[in-house]
Amino acid sequence: MSGGRLDIIGLGPGAADLQCPRATQALHQATDLLGYLPYVQRVQAHPEQCVHASDNREEILRARHALQLAADGRQVAVVSAGDAGVFGMAAAVFEALEQGDLQWRELPIQVHPGISAVLAVAARLGAPLGNDFCVISLSDNLKPWTVIEHRVAHAAQAGLVMALYNPISQSRPWQLGSTFALLRRHLPASVPVIFARAISREDEAVLVTSLQDAQPEQADMRTLVLIGTAETRCLERPDGGAWVYTPRSVGGGL
Amino acid sequence: MSGGRLDIIGLGPGAADLQCPRATQALHQATDLLGYLPYVQRVQAHPEQCVHASDNREEILRARHALQLAADGRQVAVVSAGDAGVFGMAAAVFEALEQGDLQWRELPIQVHPGISAVLAVAARLGAPLGNDFCVISLSDNLKPWTVIEHRVAHAAQAGLVMALYNPISQSRPWQLGSTFALLRRHLPASVPVIFARAISREDEAVLVTSLQDAQPEQADMRTLVLIGTAETRCLERPDGGAWVYTPRSVGGGL
Repeated sequence: MSGGRLDIIGLGPGAADLQCPRATQALHQATDLLGYLPYVQRVQAHPEQCVHASDNREEILRARHALQLAADGRQVAVVSAGDAGVFGMAAAVFEALEQGDLQWRELPIQVHPGISAVLAVAARLGAPLGNDFCVISLSDNLKPWTVIEHRVAHAAQAGLVMALYNPISQSRPWQLGSTFALLRRHLPASVPVIFARAISREDEAVLVTSLQDAQPEQADMRTLVLIGTAETRCLERPDGGAWVYTPRSVGGGL
Repeated sequence: MSGGRLDIIGLGPGAADLQCPRATQALHQATDLLGYLPYVQRVQAHPEQCVHASDNREEILRARHALQLAADGRQVAVVSAGDAGVFGMAAAVFEALEQGDLQWRELPIQVHPGISAVLAVAARLGAPLGNDFCVISLSDNLKPWTVIEHRVAHAAQAGLVMALYNPISQSRPWQLGSTFALLRRHLPASVPVIFARAISREDEAVLVTSLQDAQPEQADMRTLVLIGTAETRCLERPDGGAWVYTPRSVGGGL
C-alpha cells in the first residue's frame, strides 16, 4: 500500500457549530471527498481537493470507489450527514471492504462520529430520549417491510421511544401511514409524535402532535419522526412551542 | 426574570476534538457550571466561573439548583458526558421544570447535543449500528428490573442491535449476567458482544467477544456493552483488532 487512508466522516445535522473538530480536521487533510451531492456541497473544499459527488442510491459503488482511491495512495474522506454510522456510509464501506480486494484490509480506516439527526432533534425538543429508545429506518429498500413492522411492533410493546428515519419518499408513499396505523394498535392515542425537519438548518421546522392526529403528509424526505411513549410529557415553552421530555423513571405497570 | 439562562450541554465522550463548537461556546459564556464532579472537571473553567460539582445520584437536586440560579439571573451551564439527552441531565432538568416554580418556565433554556457514548463506541468499532438499534440503560435505580427484562427481550426478538448503558456497578452486580442469560435464550451464541470502556480517553479499552463467551466481569461502570444481531460481522483489522459492522440489508427470515 502506498500511504493512502480512508476517513468516514459524519458532518452533523447541518449547522457548522454542530460539526466536531475531529471531523473538520479530517476533512481538511483529505485529497478526495466522496459523498451524496448535497452532503459534499456542505464541505468547504479547498481548490486542490477532488470532489466526487454521487447519487443517493449508490452507496456501495461510492464505498468501493473510496477504498480503491485510498489503495491508490489518496487521502480519502467519505462524508455522511449526521453520524456516518447511523444509516450513513460507514456500514456500506465495511460491506465493500469485506467483499472487495483483500489488500484493502491493510488500509488505515477511521470513522469520525457526528451529531446524528436523532440527537439533534432530541436536543431541539428538550429531552424526548430521556429513557430507553430505538432508532429504526422505515425504508424498505434494503429490508422487507415485514421486518420493519415486526421491529416497530416490538419496540412499541417494549415501551421504547422511537426515532423513525427515512419516513417517506416519492417511491415509498404509504409506509409511514401504515406505521401510524400499527402504532395506534399498541400505544395510547395521546402519545406525542414529533415531525422534525432539517433541524439546525435555515429551513428547520418542528411540529409536535399526537399519535391520534399524526398524518403521513406532515413528513417529507428530510423529516425525522419521533414517537414518544405513554410517559412522554409536553410542556409549553415561553415562545408558544412545546418542550417534550420522557421522564427517567418508569412505573412497574408493563 | 432577570436575564438568566440555562444551557444543558453534552461534552462528548472525552476527547477534546469530539466536543462540538456550540457546546464549547456555551460553556465559555456561562457564569456557573453544574454537574457530576468528573464531568465538570473536564471543563477548562475560567477563574471567574463558579463551579458547582455534585454527586452522581443528585440529578434532580442539581437540576433544581440550576433552574434557581438561572431564575436569579445567572448564565448557567449544566454538563453531562456524551449527550445530555441520553441518560444525562436533560430529562432531569425538564422533570424539575415541570414540578417546580411556574416562573422557571419563562427561562430561556437550550439543550446542546454531544457525541453520545454509543456513537463514539460505534465509530471506534466500525459500523456496528449499521442497521436498526436501541439504547437501553440496565440501571434499575429508576425503573423496575422487570421493565428492563421486558425491553431487552423485545429488542432481541426485534433483531435490534443493543447498546447497554450502566451495565454494572457495586450496587448492581448481577444485572448484566442476568441480561446475558436472557439474551442467550433469544439470540445465537455467536452474536458479537463488545465491551467498550472510556472510548476516546487515555484509558480506552475495547474487547470484542461473543454472546457465548461474554462475562459480566468484563464490564465496569465506565463500559458500554454493545450486543450485535445474528447478522453483525467481524473483520480482522491490520492492527490485529476487529472491525465490527452490521450490514444495511436484512433477510426476510424473521
